[in-house]
Amino acid sequence: MLLRVRAAVAQLAAGLGAGPGAQPPAEGRGGGAGAGRGSPPPAAFCRPAFLQLTPEELRRADDHTGRAVQSPRDGRRRLPWSTGYLSVLSLQGRKGFYFHYWALFDGHAGSGAAVMASERLHLHICEQLRELTGSADTNQMSNAEDCGEVPNDAVPRFHLEKAVSHESLVIGAIENAFKHMDEQIERERASQHLPGGCCALAAIYLMGKFYVANAGDSRAIIIRNGEIIPMSREFTPETERQRLQFLALLRPELLGKEFTHLEFPRRIQPKELGKKMLYRDQNMNGWAYKKIEEDDLKFPLIFGEGKKARMMATIGVTRGLGDHDLKVFSSNIHIKPFLSCFPEVRVYDLTQYEHCPDDVLVLGTDGLWDVTNDEEVAGVVMEVLTSYEPNDPCRYTMVAQELVVRSRGVLKERGWRLANDKLGSGDDISVFVIPLDVNKLGAHNRK
Amino acid sequence: MLLRVRAAVAQLAAGLGAGPGAQPPAEGRGGGAGAGRGSPPPAAFCRPAFLQLTPEELRRADDHTGRAVQSPRDGRRRLPWSTGYLSVLSLQGRKGFYFHYWALFDGHAGSGAAVMASERLHLHICEQLRELTGSADTNQMSNAEDCGEVPNDAVPRFHLEKAVSHESLVIGAIENAFKHMDEQIERERASQHLPGGCCALAAIYLMGKFYVANAGDSRAIIIRNGEIIPMSREFTPETERQRLQFLALLRPELLGKEFTHLEFPRRIQPKELGKKMLYRDQNMNGWAYKKIEEDDLKFPLIFGEGKKARMMATIGVTRGLGDHDLKVFSSNIHIKPFLSCFPEVRVYDLTQYEHCPDDVLVLGTDGLWDVTNDEEVAGVVMEVLTSYEPNDPCRYTMVAQELVVRSRGVLKERGWRLANDKLGSGDDISVFVIPLDVNKLGAHNRK
Repeated sequence: MLLRVRAAVAQLAAGLGAGPGAQPPAEGRGGGAGAGRGSPPPAAFCRPAFLQLTPEELRRADDHTGRAVQSPRDGRRRLPWSTGYLSVLSLQGRKGFYFHYWALFDGHAGSGAAVMASERLHLHICEQLRELTGSADTNQMSNAEDCGEVPNDAVPRFHLEKAVSHESLVIGAIENAFKHMDEQIERERASQHLPGGCCALAAIYLMGKFYVANAGDSRAIIIRNGEIIPMSREFTPETERQRLQFLALLRPELLGKEFTHLEFPRRIQPKELGKKMLYRDQNMNGWAYKKIEEDDLKFPLIFGEGKKARMMATIGVTRGLGDHDLKVFSSNIHIKPFLSCFPEVRVYDLTQYEHCPDDVLVLGTDGLWDVTNDEEVAGVVMEVLTSYEPNDPCRYTMVAQELVVRSRGVLKERGWRLANDKLGSGDDISVFVIPLDVNKLGAHNRK
Repeated sequence: MLLRVRAAVAQLAAGLGAGPGAQPPAEGRGGGAGAGRGSPPPAAFCRPAFLQLTPEELRRADDHTGRAVQSPRDGRRRLPWSTGYLSVLSLQGRKGFYFHYWALFDGHAGSGAAVMASERLHLHICEQLRELTGSADTNQMSNAEDCGEVPNDAVPRFHLEKAVSHESLVIGAIENAFKHMDEQIERERASQHLPGGCCALAAIYLMGKFYVANAGDSRAIIIRNGEIIPMSREFTPETERQRLQFLALLRPELLGKEFTHLEFPRRIQPKELGKKMLYRDQNMNGWAYKKIEEDDLKFPLIFGEGKKARMMATIGVTRGLGDHDLKVFSSNIHIKPFLSCFPEVRVYDLTQYEHCPDDVLVLGTDGLWDVTNDEEVAGVVMEVLTSYEPNDPCRYTMVAQELVVRSRGVLKERGWRLANDKLGSGDDISVFVIPLDVNKLGAHNRK
């Protein structure tokens, strides 16, 4: 990817009873650095407002040589859940219920989409949940309007009616919030100067459950009693190959005669026409041989592997927000039709397990996971947490800091190096460490 | 589904060194009941040849009132791996290597496709593996031609060349074998009277690894030291909803103006136009509301849930072989474009674990799994195996028999009943129980 920018943001939860005309609350801005509505184009790099950086610190944050690690300056006052890196404020609406919200937006090719998503995605989620409680389908939502609550799981009224759970209504609301966020970026990208796109990873806590929504290559895991529970998967040209190839096969005009939907292990030379070559199509997970034809000389839709895998030789993530203007280099071929703005949402029911203060949900951008695997992260979590008192509100921030420092490494003569002397992550790194001990959730935890 | 027929078959492994013109070996027929090439249309119900049924027993097998459980008459002689239900012969080719093969073909709407697949799928697998060893791409397969063996994992020669493992070549060969099988059924369905379609679940043992290929709603699990390891997933309108909706969205002409690609929890009445209704599209896992439009009054592409889920109100499985003539009832809308003949192939490396004689791979048609879940199957496996000596070659057949009898139930006044008095499976039931103890694999097990 080209220029990358990262905005890490936690957004407040807004009361769902607020009227349709409600303004985004002032606390809702977190992407920082003068990116409010109507403001000038955002800076190339920005940090969340909750970090309360001074102008000098903001400049330091933009210094790619020193690579300072940023964490909140007053964790005790600002972090009600003692979340590592940052936490979340909570406001009550008139008749609403609460949700808590954390999100990471990992931008590329410009910061505009990431900053805007950091300022607005929670409002779209809020809006979708509000529509849910106000919806008037009498079969599914009979009690919804009066009490302003998500309804009880509906009992089918007709034969052959499918029962739809609360959970899947919330999942649908979050999915559509991502779609509306993407549409807003599309509408306003010209007037608001919103270049680029971003991966989005959001964790929403609502009525005793965590909903983890991921569109891109960030990752979330829960560490519970030392056990690792994956809460997301990455969406890349490799993991989404079959979806992308299927679309390319059905809509070949999207390939602009430059690409083939088949995957080959390497570029094919014209002189190899007629010979045999390994390939994979949209139906295959394995590889097989085919005779090389003229069409196979085109560039493969998916090419490269691991961190170097690219779709249309351009982009290494296949879900996210923005990228509406992204084209294949020096061509008129649009990338966006292949990208999905829809997240995969996984649910974790906090009430099903008695959590201890060392159980956490970790959200991290790919800069973390590229050099530190799940087991190593779990090791750092356990190591750091045991060195602090269970009720020390800084302990989760210290975990986040340790994770970022270890993944960045230390600047030596031969570049940024990890403890094992391997290269540290050259990418931006942002991490949340969120405690799962429900006793900490206090009065806001309505089970 | 309509008329269902089941053919359970184990096929011999053929030497891969055999020349391209080699005839299918005579032992290759297992689907039984006079369904050989050029023979008259197969019986409505058939049993594998290895069961060695007498004409009288064949008639009994076709008796849907008595529902006799069939197992091999002389397990000791015929079952070299002591496989439950049946096992597999193994022939050595001139320069070939071995594979062992078991498969279940669960037919619907006629037995023709199931019987033909039972007679030919292993030959297509053989053919694909042979092509693999004979392929001449010098980068990937440099040693393949001379030694007649699957090559060592190739080392990339060029920068940006993807390394392709043995395993993924075998997976590709199996995937393409399913495709060629499906094409053969398509070609010969008129001349050979091959109505209907079938789910196919095949287990191939090759060079120390099990490759389990599944296209349909049969299921395979490994039970190892009491632990359950899933070796397949089911492909149904529910599990493949998003793929089907995506295709319907991109190719609306396939819906014949009768169906909508959206899913609704129930049929919508014309009088509900303009009201709100829950829906899901190809991007969503959750549910959300939309305003009902004219188009939403069409029948949903996917409708119903669980065992009653249907695609286009017609079929309950979305992968398999055959079904080329299947249409929506009293219409000209073809079902086949939505069906995939490609299996998902999962690999289990036998050499990575020291197996005991009680570790098994269980293959079963949906008739088993509909009433007996994974844990119950594991329970029966352990219970039955402990009551036989570890070297008793009948013990795996006894497990298979117990699984089938328990899932069928006992005929009482109120129909076939399970031990807990619930209804037994009214579907056909076929089961393989394959031991994983490598010591039993003898000389054929080349690690």
